[in-house]
Amino acid sequence: MSTLLESYAAGRWFRSADEGEPLLDAATGEEVARISSRGLDTGAMLRHAREVGGPALRALTFHERASALKALAKHLLAGKDEFYALSVRTGATSRDTAVDVDGGIGTLFSFAGKGTRELPNDTIVLDGAVEPLSKGGTFVGRHIYTSRPGVAVQINAFNFPVWGMLEKLAPAFLAGLPTIVKPGSQTAYLTELVVRRIIESGLLPDGALQLISGSAGSLLDELTLQDSVAFTGSAHTAGILRRHPNILDGGVRLGVEADSLNCSILGPDVRSDDPEFDLFIKGVVAEMTVKAGQKCTAIRRVIVPSQIAGQVEDALAARLSKITVGDPRNPDVRMGALASLGQRDEVRKAVESLRAGSEIVFGDPDGGPLLDGDAERGAFLTPLVLRARPGAAEPHNVEPFGPVSTVLAYDGIDEAVALAARGKGSLVASVATHDPDVARAIVLGLAPWHGRVLVLDRDDAKESTGHGSPLPTLVHGGPGRAGGGEELGGIRAVLHHMQRTAVQASPDLLTAVTGQWTTGAARRDDDVHPFRKSLAELRIGDTIRSGQRTVSLADIEHFAEFTGDTFYAHTDAEAAARNPLFGGIVAHGYLVVSLAAGLFVEPSPGPVLANFGVDNLRFLTPVKADDTIAVTLTVKQIKPRNSADYGEVRWDAVVTNQDGQPVATYDVLTLVAKTWPSEG
Amino acid sequence: MSTLLESYAAGRWFRSADEGEPLLDAATGEEVARISSRGLDTGAMLRHAREVGGPALRALTFHERASALKALAKHLLAGKDEFYALSVRTGATSRDTAVDVDGGIGTLFSFAGKGTRELPNDTIVLDGAVEPLSKGGTFVGRHIYTSRPGVAVQINAFNFPVWGMLEKLAPAFLAGLPTIVKPGSQTAYLTELVVRRIIESGLLPDGALQLISGSAGSLLDELTLQDSVAFTGSAHTAGILRRHPNILDGGVRLGVEADSLNCSILGPDVRSDDPEFDLFIKGVVAEMTVKAGQKCTAIRRVIVPSQIAGQVEDALAARLSKITVGDPRNPDVRMGALASLGQRDEVRKAVESLRAGSEIVFGDPDGGPLLDGDAERGAFLTPLVLRARPGAAEPHNVEPFGPVSTVLAYDGIDEAVALAARGKGSLVASVATHDPDVARAIVLGLAPWHGRVLVLDRDDAKESTGHGSPLPTLVHGGPGRAGGGEELGGIRAVLHHMQRTAVQASPDLLTAVTGQWTTGAARRDDDVHPFRKSLAELRIGDTIRSGQRTVSLADIEHFAEFTGDTFYAHTDAEAAARNPLFGGIVAHGYLVVSLAAGLFVEPSPGPVLANFGVDNLRFLTPVKADDTIAVTLTVKQIKPRNSADYGEVRWDAVVTNQDGQPVATYDVLTLVAKTWPSEG
Repeated sequence: MSTLLESYAAGRWFRSADEGEPLLDAATGEEVARISSRGLDTGAMLRHAREVGGPALRALTFHERASALKALAKHLLAGKDEFYALSVRTGATSRDTAVDVDGGIGTLFSFAGKGTRELPNDTIVLDGAVEPLSKGGTFVGRHIYTSRPGVAVQINAFNFPVWGMLEKLAPAFLAGLPTIVKPGSQTAYLTELVVRRIIESGLLPDGALQLISGSAGSLLDELTLQDSVAFTGSAHTAGILRRHPNILDGGVRLGVEADSLNCSILGPDVRSDDPEFDLFIKGVVAEMTVKAGQKCTAIRRVIVPSQIAGQVEDALAARLSKITVGDPRNPDVRMGALASLGQRDEVRKAVESLRAGSEIVFGDPDGGPLLDGDAERGAFLTPLVLRARPGAAEPHNVEPFGPVSTVLAYDGIDEAVALAARGKGSLVASVATHDPDVARAIVLGLAPWHGRVLVLDRDDAKESTGHGSPLPTLVHGGPGRAGGGEELGGIRAVLHHMQRTAVQASPDLLTAVTGQWTTGAARRDDDVHPFRKSLAELRIGDTIRSGQRTVSLADIEHFAEFTGDTFYAHTDAEAAARNPLFGGIVAHGYLVVSLAAGLFVEPSPGPVLANFGVDNLRFLTPVKADDTIAVTLTVKQIKPRNSADYGEVRWDAVVTNQDGQPVATYDVLTLVAKTWPSEG
Repeated sequence: MSTLLESYAAGRWFRSADEGEPLLDAATGEEVARISSRGLDTGAMLRHAREVGGPALRALTFHERASALKALAKHLLAGKDEFYALSVRTGATSRDTAVDVDGGIGTLFSFAGKGTRELPNDTIVLDGAVEPLSKGGTFVGRHIYTSRPGVAVQINAFNFPVWGMLEKLAPAFLAGLPTIVKPGSQTAYLTELVVRRIIESGLLPDGALQLISGSAGSLLDELTLQDSVAFTGSAHTAGILRRHPNILDGGVRLGVEADSLNCSILGPDVRSDDPEFDLFIKGVVAEMTVKAGQKCTAIRRVIVPSQIAGQVEDALAARLSKITVGDPRNPDVRMGALASLGQRDEVRKAVESLRAGSEIVFGDPDGGPLLDGDAERGAFLTPLVLRARPGAAEPHNVEPFGPVSTVLAYDGIDEAVALAARGKGSLVASVATHDPDVARAIVLGLAPWHGRVLVLDRDDAKESTGHGSPLPTLVHGGPGRAGGGEELGGIRAVLHHMQRTAVQASPDLLTAVTGQWTTGAARRDDDVHPFRKSLAELRIGDTIRSGQRTVSLADIEHFAEFTGDTFYAHTDAEAAARNPLFGGIVAHGYLVVSLAAGLFVEPSPGPVLANFGVDNLRFLTPVKADDTIAVTLTVKQIKPRNSADYGEVRWDAVVTNQDGQPVATYDVLTLVAKTWPSEG
């Protein structure tokens, strides 16, 4: 008898007492492993996540969490051969496994990078600008995101045992939530192996990741409003989850990626000898055959101009006939098996339903040619193309989860969009076109019905990742039938796991809460110029109030001549007087900020290493000849870098004139050494 | 018999054939109006919204929609006396009515302003940065928000018949969604009056707003995945809505604001002679008595340090005993009636439940002193304060929707936060403290459980809008029991009504889809300098490729001397050589951008009126002495202003050195005239 898969619960591996259910090799029918979670204490898992994993995770800053993800990604990458070897038993070719294993590891790397670059080295995230709430400026507001003290439960589908786990783990982990994974049983042996390697690595805090091999039992009954469930699978199961009392009335958040009848549209501008025609055909065939069409993003509906539909069918048939199907152990096989015989039965049933409104134009649902493999015990199914009769409903409602697509003909962009919309909300659509107007019309028509839209043309084809690939930096999810959820999309996915809260306070207390200096809050003046303070010594609110400088007409004229910026508003009094915004000669904005830098700079070597940028520079009041300016510079935000001996300091800069009016406001970005030999 | 309220459906006022149910004056018990929607064709309303209102709205740009909201706000403000006169029949004092009527109109103004300032003058919204998806740069991604071709249904509570409608209408309208309003019956006569004035004004497109006076009938059965329902009311009704098949399986989006047991916490730092003590007491009393405590944001739980709890109770009693209760027609009355006798029964029942774990320390649920009004027919209830016994569960679970609060004692910040969390998710919490560390600890502890947290202290008290006031610029909504929804929050609320979609394409086609120039897309060079083109002539992609300029050591030295920016990296070769980032003398960043302006400027008067700012300036490669720079400036985005004869043009600027390396990238912001006399 094969190995019984274990669960990882409350800090140890748990082995069920019973024999479990067998899991069979997709291509050979041999038993790979057995699975059972009987006797698993899910309550203890939740307690462990809440009391151990969550607090440990939330004690780390976003950058520290990102570092852990990066180390984990490297660790898994180094050991990926083992995952490839096991993955073949799911029916996957090595191309399929790359999507699952390398795709999953790549997602970890991507979130590690985004977490470091786009999140603060802190435990809360600020959202949007400070909102003025009063005239006097003593009452202001700001939105923050905080980590929920809960647990992220993921319930995954069988088709991506590695990517499915990692793409949900990465954003939850960054958000400070411990994860409990329940993989789809059919391929859970691969998830279990990867979890084993993760746990062994010791790279994640104890309790940050737990695994249920088998049924989740009463887990959902024990969740509370700070917990969330991310589900990928059928609309049927999603409906059951949505009906759970804890989801309906208990405040548990549920995100769903479910059935999706994605489409690909051939633009009305494309002729059969255009490059986009071939790209379109290649794209459809790739989506039909990668993972044997078992992808929630696969193309089920091929929407093409009616006058070219026959050519599309012929081209699909020609290309599909070259796809070799069989046991993925054979390197000449291009398409492996479905995950199980049961899955194949499901697909065949779906094809039967489709045939009510469509006819098969390529392939045989009962068995096409195999290059290699046991047609009896292996869950093989060769690709099938159907042609829908006009108005047929089935192609928009029946999802054959395998290498099956239906061709639908359209006349005019409106009908193409209307056909796409009949899918009632999908994860992704693609359109092959090289015409900018067609691209805009179709994409904006499709957008309300889709989470992602790919435009394929001769310019992006070479580098395109294709219709079917969710990317870590782009949202994955769709409205309506696709479940209404949103995953990935970089930091967006992290924020979905956090709570957004509006905070209202005085500027001083808002500064204390957010850790970012807020206009109106106290400024700290002391004898030491802040440019002489290292990152360790600088404090939020540390301020330089500069001396003054009068900007003479000669300064303006000289600056114009020196820089070549002889714009008439700086050089021609008569013409400047006619400018509706200035009404006379004004100093260059760049002159103002250059002089401001001269006023605040501390010239000798010190901890401030460089000015690497400026944000949100706005010129508010023109500076005229003989105006006198001064600048106030205040430490707004401090972001140490974990990987360098310096960090970023954001300074609030306000340049004022002799009347105290602000003439320019901006943020100055500097790099500041973490330590610096003490002065003297 | 009083007037039968009408519905506004499919472009006309509909009057039900039956007599309807009576709606009674809260203070006098007289009949104000009758209500019925029997015979109303909600299907026709939905068709009208989908086929007439939606398309008309979405044909407008965000700025045009914002203008319509602003005009509407002015119109309603001009006629508000009529609303005040009718509002008194709901039991509201004029202070209460200000919250409802002026609050609602203010929300329209706020969204009109935000829509103009923060949204493009277009029909789609770009979200986040362009995401590079490939090494070669031919495949890029970006997120967009598009309007859903659906209907926004709002189901409101009785307590804010005007604000409740307008705070949901404004963001939906900006998002391009037609609205169908179903007000709470008890006060629907005021909503009906306001809708009547809106429709008469002709300021909104036909079909953009419809009204159901009475039951919504089968409206929900007819909704589809592009529609949304925004509900404010009881958790019980929210539960019924959540169980509707169209919500569960049909993809209809549901946003809920439901029961919320909001709390206010007195910080452990506050002594009874601190200003924050008085502010806290005033805040609690205001929340108990405004709208007679019938606010979803009212303070139900008063969480105070145990050693000061008695003083809090005494102070509340002292202040509450001065609150005059009675018929709101009497100007000396501070607190009016509950909305109905039925509501009073509900509150009394809730108080009975609370008494299982608490005792009354102020007031009498069976009748306190009235300044004016009929104690029999008017729904009066005088304020009540309870004291919870340690560990009592009821204060965290029972919501008395009236002038009732319970005092709970705590020891230590952790217990204060834990007590707040026992509310299982609330709309808002407040904390009175003047201590920055206390503020940070309590706010970050409360945040995951709340949509809004107010910090009250001596600095913001004078201008604070108080615990109970949702503001248009801050999110309103809370997790868990509060419903899990999010309303308001400025543009956030608009985006909640739209669909976010990731678009992947070549830079050229992404530019075509988004209307914003994307790095890598074609640049248009022609003989005319783009600074000579008016807004009408400029096109996305129009480009200036400048000549070159060599930056000499003398330039750097001169700039240092002229501006006073004598930072050692520009002036001291030996010290500069030791800088880890530069390794030698470098040009000032401000010198580089100043010279770049000299390279791209077109000096004579023309349509470009001013440079009003710079965004996202980053210095990527140091410019050393004798490096030669050039700049490429490309039109990235064009934003005409409807209220001025110029608009904003955002230019993509890239400064490169002699090796073609980018040394600085930024966006230049200019104001450009809409038209300009043709050249020559």
